Amino acid sequence: MLDVCLLGTGGMMPLPYRWLTSLMMRFNGKSILIDCGEGTQIAMKEKGWSPKPIDIICFTHYHADHISGLPGMLLTMGNAERTEPLTLIGPKGLPRVAGALRTIAPELPFEIRYVEIEDNFQRFDFGDFSLEAFRVNHNVVCYGYSMVVPRAGRFQLDKVLERGIPKAYWSRLQKGETIQDGDKVYTPDMVLGEPRKGLKVTYCTDTRPTESIERNGAGADLLILEGMYGEPDKLAKAREYKHMTMYEAARIAAKVAAQAAAEAACGWEKAAGTAAEAACGQEKAACAAPELWLTHYSPSLTYPEEYMKDVRKIYPRAVAAKDGRSVELRFEEDQE
Amino acid sequence: MLDVCLLGTGGMMPLPYRWLTSLMMRFNGKSILIDCGEGTQIAMKEKGWSPKPIDIICFTHYHADHISGLPGMLLTMGNAERTEPLTLIGPKGLPRVAGALRTIAPELPFEIRYVEIEDNFQRFDFGDFSLEAFRVNHNVVCYGYSMVVPRAGRFQLDKVLERGIPKAYWSRLQKGETIQDGDKVYTPDMVLGEPRKGLKVTYCTDTRPTESIERNGAGADLLILEGMYGEPDKLAKAREYKHMTMYEAARIAAKVAAQAAAEAACGWEKAAGTAAEAACGQEKAACAAPELWLTHYSPSLTYPEEYMKDVRKIYPRAVAAKDGRSVELRFEEDQE
Repeated sequence: MLDVCLLGTGGMMPLPYRWLTSLMMRFNGKSILIDCGEGTQIAMKEKGWSPKPIDIICFTHYHADHISGLPGMLLTMGNAERTEPLTLIGPKGLPRVAGALRTIAPELPFEIRYVEIEDNFQRFDFGDFSLEAFRVNHNVVCYGYSMVVPRAGRFQLDKVLERGIPKAYWSRLQKGETIQDGDKVYTPDMVLGEPRKGLKVTYCTDTRPTESIERNGAGADLLILEGMYGEPDKLAKAREYKHMTMYEAARIAAKVAAQAAAEAACGWEKAAGTAAEAACGQEKAACAAPELWLTHYSPSLTYPEEYMKDVRKIYPRAVAAKDGRSVELRFEEDQE
Repeated sequence: MLDVCLLGTGGMMPLPYRWLTSLMMRFNGKSILIDCGEGTQIAMKEKGWSPKPIDIICFTHYHADHISGLPGMLLTMGNAERTEPLTLIGPKGLPRVAGALRTIAPELPFEIRYVEIEDNFQRFDFGDFSLEAFRVNHNVVCYGYSMVVPRAGRFQLDKVLERGIPKAYWSRLQKGETIQDGDKVYTPDMVLGEPRKGLKVTYCTDTRPTESIERNGAGADLLILEGMYGEPDKLAKAREYKHMTMYEAARIAAKVAAQAAAEAACGWEKAAGTAAEAACGQEKAACAAPELWLTHYSPSLTYPEEYMKDVRKIYPRAVAAKDGRSVELRFEEDQE
């Protein structure tokens, strides 16, 4: 199960009724945070989740609304007596920027490991999941991220028996281990079928629409994209400051879903209403159209919902996310 | 009128129900902020006050909970198109610490003037008010502050007529101007009586009790002091980390008030109940016992009110302040 919580939905500055945009995910005992603005640690406590077990913090870019909460978060993790190392991932310059902010958080009881993104696309593997960073188009170097949880194929008993693989090895092979037994080598693919559909969340704020978002969003179960403005006359402003309108985000989601639908032969166009209603014309498990959560609203955008009727004409499964919006994503067979 | 708002009352880390300790004051068109932790800008908006007109930000010290909100505050002031210079006052090292934090707020449409405190006591004069910084005793260099609004004496018509001062000069002299008229020099003291009682707020967090707090709190209309712990068994912890308990703060207030009472011959000991009840045994204007607002609570101190019965045995006018506690202090004759 992949636990996802959009802790905040604001852009530029925190507001009394809206935390800055930040995503927290928990999977198999690991906690991952994307971006950490002023107040993110409070939003996390409000949700009831703890900063202490965070293993990885990814930064999309170094504008203050995405990193200003780092020193406070580190100190709070330290005060909770965390000792395990923490990995920070971000665009080039990470040690310089995070190091400057650590002027007010110099002493911590845990090690910080800095990982700078070198390429336009880079995958960071953490064993049972990976994080994929992909370059987007903002007025400073900025990345989107996909959280990817792969899933091995089903255990194939007939195949195993046919090959005469010793029973003692079955479980280890199923877990991905390769086993040498004398001159024989057993590999996981000898006991497993084709890899099954895993889980994927793609997250991206602070960018103009790019082909890289569509490409990296492919196959996502959930798209979380910037919808900075809803007012149709703000398109010029979005272009000038390199942000994305709610409609542009919806068009990206529509393309991602159309591609997925073509592959899965799922009539996503029939999906109607909000995700909360989940009124997908197909079996839920078979619907390839991901939910789209809009976020990173301009402080001037007081009621994002106001524009959702038009947004849903472009992409029916779009949601104007509110702070703390959460979902538990499960592997297909695990769904209730 | 001096407008005072304690924006937050927390220490160490911001909590969903408690902002970090910070004080905002407004006087005669000027806005002064003392400390700016993570979330202070949100607390300010919640109060309905604006960050844009802040003229001076004072820092008690550079622990993160007192300065981590600076970059966000500066950017929000910049986004509001502020262009007037901003003065920052703090212990030595201010340009280094604030400069490091400005790594994520590099471009601002206004100038920042850094003023480092050089001595154990230093007065900064701003025309119609002054800020007095006084050294306290924390585990890093730390200062308390007094906001002091002086008040000139009353206009003395009989004195003026007696001296034959031309009427055209009365108003200018009353406002503090010195006037040269041929070989005659007229000074304000020629038209004014003895200086009258002004307004004073003394603010101090993050310290063990010190004589400097008592000395600098003398004559204050309002004392705002750290009361980090209420549990009697936390005194050792307060000593170790150089903080102050609620009882210690109350004892300081009692000394300040006793001194003031001796001078004003006001029976402050008779004052009972909370300030809200203002059940002072004397005429309100004549009561020299300042209110004491406790603040900078430990995150472990969930209900400060729990300990107030005992605190008020030491100092009856003590209040366990909550976020946003405000008062409008007026010159004596202006009071309703």
